[in-house]
Amino acid sequence: MRVVDVVRFDPVRRPDGPIVSTRNPLVGEFTSLHDPRGRRDSGLVLIEGPTLVAEAIQAGLTIEVACSSAPDRWPDAVEVADRVLARMSTTTTPNEVVVAAHRPEEPGDHERRDLLVLVDVADPGNVGALIRSAAAFGFGIRMVGGADPWSPKALRAAAGGHFHTTMRSGGRLDLSEFHTRGFVTVATVARDGAPTIPAGGQVALLVGSEAHGLPDDAIRGAMRRLTIPTAGIESLNAAVAGSVAMYERARTR
Amino acid sequence: MRVVDVVRFDPVRRPDGPIVSTRNPLVGEFTSLHDPRGRRDSGLVLIEGPTLVAEAIQAGLTIEVACSSAPDRWPDAVEVADRVLARMSTTTTPNEVVVAAHRPEEPGDHERRDLLVLVDVADPGNVGALIRSAAAFGFGIRMVGGADPWSPKALRAAAGGHFHTTMRSGGRLDLSEFHTRGFVTVATVARDGAPTIPAGGQVALLVGSEAHGLPDDAIRGAMRRLTIPTAGIESLNAAVAGSVAMYERARTR
Repeated sequence: MRVVDVVRFDPVRRPDGPIVSTRNPLVGEFTSLHDPRGRRDSGLVLIEGPTLVAEAIQAGLTIEVACSSAPDRWPDAVEVADRVLARMSTTTTPNEVVVAAHRPEEPGDHERRDLLVLVDVADPGNVGALIRSAAAFGFGIRMVGGADPWSPKALRAAAGGHFHTTMRSGGRLDLSEFHTRGFVTVATVARDGAPTIPAGGQVALLVGSEAHGLPDDAIRGAMRRLTIPTAGIESLNAAVAGSVAMYERARTR
Repeated sequence: MRVVDVVRFDPVRRPDGPIVSTRNPLVGEFTSLHDPRGRRDSGLVLIEGPTLVAEAIQAGLTIEVACSSAPDRWPDAVEVADRVLARMSTTTTPNEVVVAAHRPEEPGDHERRDLLVLVDVADPGNVGALIRSAAAFGFGIRMVGGADPWSPKALRAAAGGHFHTTMRSGGRLDLSEFHTRGFVTVATVARDGAPTIPAGGQVALLVGSEAHGLPDDAIRGAMRRLTIPTAGIESLNAAVAGSVAMYERARTR
């Protein structure tokens, strides 16, 4: 049984009572979504906890199956025992409900808005925080390498940001694509960049990896370089640097 | 044998060869520093990896004892086998050297600079990122509750920020103390605050916990309220929100 075979609202296929065994095949289907490969193979993502699940439903994600230990609050969910929910979850204190949802069709980033381009940002917490900031500051997101933005950790860190912005993943970095489409490409760099982003136009803001920053060719090829002015120490956490840059852009947009 | 009894430059007390047993008492002394209680009882902190250790030495921290699996690069350190270093470290891939250093005397925050006041910020990664940003944006730090800023995780996330700013911990939040000393207290809030901080003066910027923000009495008692303007979703990661607020202040200081 694959998760995609369990239809959420089909009472015929529902178990008769709560699932109490962690050996139930549904448990394995959920735990497979803890890993990038399981998510990729199934096209599903794992969303955990009532707040994120409610946001996902409101955003129109297709829920394949929901499991909950609180059937009163989640009547459409398959009822599972606490320990089964714990096994299905990635958190140490599982929270009421987990769902397997179809990873949303990526709407593309063709709309007329600024873009945050994450190049090899490796930490899922940073990726999540940047998605949250992008949603808050009106940026779409392009992922190039780095952590899976749909991992449970990134979803948690984004606190619903996924459902309030657009996101495209995959491919390699090709600045000419942005230039052809009229974007002003701006590379965030630790030194020797300008302190501000020119107002107006449509900006593609490039943020590089925690360990190495942006690749040299991205820095060379970008139309502008931005350095957040600092005193004392020059380097900032990647999520902070990208967020401050987006703030600076939003402030002067 | 307590770590504090091992004198770094005393060759008489050095072991004759590398420590190869994870049962050596020095291992236990280092692992005790993984936990808040061990750090509090000994007054020592654990600093890991060549970059942070070099920064700590340069900042003048008193190193009680250093252990390294690379004696060529760390001739003053006690030589230990890789697996001993791994046990002494908190990272999954231990990195060449770990030291037990005296938690620096807290210089107080009496100097004439802005202060970041962290109230119950619970995630050590957020605390570390905020320390890093404070160092970069010229803020001293006051910790009120929340995560131990000297935990290995916070030290890692701060990437040396500890050694480039001042920090005081402990006590409860007392806004009148700041007001008496001439600070303008500014509460960061998710909504209904002003978008900027008045220029000039000396600011105490209050940032609250990830889950609950600032306590109501802190919001009521502060002289100003700051809300970072957002669109779409209003809430930001705590480290991002505090950092953007510090950036905004540094920009107009």
